[in-house]
Amino acid sequence: MTLNSADLLVTNGTVITMKPGEAPIYNGTLAIEKDKISAIGQSDEFSNWKTLRKINAGGGIVMPGLVNTHTHAAMTCFRGLADDLPLMTWLNDHIFPAESKLDYEKVYRGTLLACAEMIRNGTTCFCDMYLFEDAVAQAASKAGVRAVVGEVLYDFPSPNYGPIAQGFAYTKMLIDKWKNDPLITIAVEPHSPYLCAPELLKEALTLSQAHDIPMVVHISEAQSEVDEIKKRHGKTPVGFLADKGLLAANLVGCHCVVLTEADISLLKRHDTKVSHCPESNMKLASGIAPIPKLLKAGVCVGLGTDGCASNNNLDLFAEMETAAKLHKVSTLDPTVLDAATVLKMATLDGAKTLGLDDKIGSLEPGKSADIIIIDTRKPHLTPMYNPVSHLVYAARGSDVSTSIINGRLVMEDGRLLSLNLERVMGDVENIAEEIRSTNKKLRKVP
Amino acid sequence: MTLNSADLLVTNGTVITMKPGEAPIYNGTLAIEKDKISAIGQSDEFSNWKTLRKINAGGGIVMPGLVNTHTHAAMTCFRGLADDLPLMTWLNDHIFPAESKLDYEKVYRGTLLACAEMIRNGTTCFCDMYLFEDAVAQAASKAGVRAVVGEVLYDFPSPNYGPIAQGFAYTKMLIDKWKNDPLITIAVEPHSPYLCAPELLKEALTLSQAHDIPMVVHISEAQSEVDEIKKRHGKTPVGFLADKGLLAANLVGCHCVVLTEADISLLKRHDTKVSHCPESNMKLASGIAPIPKLLKAGVCVGLGTDGCASNNNLDLFAEMETAAKLHKVSTLDPTVLDAATVLKMATLDGAKTLGLDDKIGSLEPGKSADIIIIDTRKPHLTPMYNPVSHLVYAARGSDVSTSIINGRLVMEDGRLLSLNLERVMGDVENIAEEIRSTNKKLRKVP
Repeated sequence: MTLNSADLLVTNGTVITMKPGEAPIYNGTLAIEKDKISAIGQSDEFSNWKTLRKINAGGGIVMPGLVNTHTHAAMTCFRGLADDLPLMTWLNDHIFPAESKLDYEKVYRGTLLACAEMIRNGTTCFCDMYLFEDAVAQAASKAGVRAVVGEVLYDFPSPNYGPIAQGFAYTKMLIDKWKNDPLITIAVEPHSPYLCAPELLKEALTLSQAHDIPMVVHISEAQSEVDEIKKRHGKTPVGFLADKGLLAANLVGCHCVVLTEADISLLKRHDTKVSHCPESNMKLASGIAPIPKLLKAGVCVGLGTDGCASNNNLDLFAEMETAAKLHKVSTLDPTVLDAATVLKMATLDGAKTLGLDDKIGSLEPGKSADIIIIDTRKPHLTPMYNPVSHLVYAARGSDVSTSIINGRLVMEDGRLLSLNLERVMGDVENIAEEIRSTNKKLRKVP
Repeated sequence: MTLNSADLLVTNGTVITMKPGEAPIYNGTLAIEKDKISAIGQSDEFSNWKTLRKINAGGGIVMPGLVNTHTHAAMTCFRGLADDLPLMTWLNDHIFPAESKLDYEKVYRGTLLACAEMIRNGTTCFCDMYLFEDAVAQAASKAGVRAVVGEVLYDFPSPNYGPIAQGFAYTKMLIDKWKNDPLITIAVEPHSPYLCAPELLKEALTLSQAHDIPMVVHISEAQSEVDEIKKRHGKTPVGFLADKGLLAANLVGCHCVVLTEADISLLKRHDTKVSHCPESNMKLASGIAPIPKLLKAGVCVGLGTDGCASNNNLDLFAEMETAAKLHKVSTLDPTVLDAATVLKMATLDGAKTLGLDDKIGSLEPGKSADIIIIDTRKPHLTPMYNPVSHLVYAARGSDVSTSIINGRLVMEDGRLLSLNLERVMGDVENIAEEIRSTNKKLRKVP
């Protein structure tokens, strides 16, 4: 039987499928049936197809939605609250006091704003670590964004769940509650080796593997953290995790800035994934992760924005550009992290990092319809010799015109369809007003 | 006499004047009379003013237009032509062959596209070095963008003017032709110490000082260049220039990536200005300029994008963000290049770099009306605790809604008024098609 109908056809695009080895399809068309991609090809192959709806990509780029492998979405509430400070001043005087007043409602509203921003910037899937993660799952579901969400676990009591035993109970509740959701995957997310006892980490890994879901952990974000773990355990964070049997293929190590050659070998040996967050690492002066070495060793690396308080936006296009350029200058080699490699980090390898590459990350029949259209009819994208170069070195999140997630049109021609943008922004402005009123330092206008 | 009328009032903005020590004016208004700013204050002070026209900033940020201190505007024609290559392959196999086919018309069209892109990204003044610079001045004038333009001079014959003696004649022609133009300043622009004999450089400095205009030179962009000058002259490029009496307050050194402590002292002693182009330096893997040290020494530093072939866009907002973050990570100090410092580099210090700070770079009565409005009613700029932080860490060029240059409205609500955008883009697409047809490597779709 030959297909000849679809629910939706995206026509007249330069289709970058990200399927390994596949060249761009010029004047391509993509067919969507329910929540899945059903066919991809030259537009003329679809001339006789019946369809409920057509979206004309207008010669723009059609590609898989971007995958943000690490963020703390609700930190949109603290965007620009404090910058340019020593790490401990920033955390202790600004971020921790603000976070201590968070609740379910604020996390829900902050995450809705993050979802609005991410949809507009072409992100269709994000991995979140924060407090009140049921609110994050609710917000992502409402916004229509795919998400991997996990409640942060650590040794001390949490403002959400209280003592750690209840943290595990809360995580199990999330796993059960969201197990059949088409957009939400629950992950187990112990904060880091420096805030979690080995027993906590072990229990987390066991839980994640029992449910075949990711475990997400901050690893080796800065030298101070490595020093602390060495003091406690006599090893680097990666060495310590390996020693305890905690490195695994379902483990996502966020940051991985300070690594030894031995650490890199261990990550590769256990097929542990890495979430690279260059802009946050730069802004907090944490250091430059050895991404070219990780890639050379064969470690799977995805891209992440980290939270808005250390970035300060959630634009993976900017993150791609920064990643490509940062590693060139840090290695003094203009050939490392070429555009195609970086684009793969932000799509297929991001999906692989989160264990979702059977479902998303590339445009292939049978995969979920998570698709974005980039409007290339703009001065800064003219002329176009190479669409992949433009996506990494010239485009911005604001060039994304249309986004489809799991077959649902969530943005069309720049208009957000799944959320009331004015209300979402207004709600977070109200939260900001409350934060201002309780922080004398903020009263002084900068 | 109290002022009570204006040609144009920009109302209801958060006005960041960039006048040293001045706090943001919330709900501020700015008055424009002909080509100049005539008054700035709280909006209620203007309630009785008569005006020909009002522009409501809608609560957005009103600030001086950004100053791009170094670019090769017409290289828009080569945007994304070749990336991720070793420097010599990139230059010899791609850029030089494409440049050898340039002419007046192509430079004019390429520069118009650059002007369209820069206006849309909030740049109101740029400093250009390239071939056929009369075309650049014509294009900037047509687009209504302020520009400092200078024909590139070097020892070997130029496709434009032929032998170097005619290069000086051409520069003098430009100085004479454009001397009364309100937007155009001519500069003398010998390429670099490695492509220019000391006599050429000396003659250029004399000419620039006779006319009280800037001299713009590439200096110490990469280690290989420093090695070459050391071999020829036994000194670093800056040391060599000092030795020959060529460091001066009207000299703009572009890049200045590889500098010794002694070089930094020399630049400071002679009040030589520096144009910092971090994204280009990263993409070409040239190195990281010691900007925190230059600033500490008191050297005036402006920001530049460099040309589109090594960036690949002309967005100074992205450049600000990259500059702030790059130097934090390279020094492992999160407090260096804070947002206010970087914003000054992109405005007032950029103007000072080009010798135009008596006229532009800050919003003050009597200065030229070069003003941009940033629309902050967007998810990625919500909430707003600190407008300066947002401009550097969260905003993008695409957030600029309106631009006024020398009192002329060149963009309003994202609509370019001074150029026919479709025609400008179409003209460069035609140039790209010609380049494609003569370069076999480009036929193979990437």
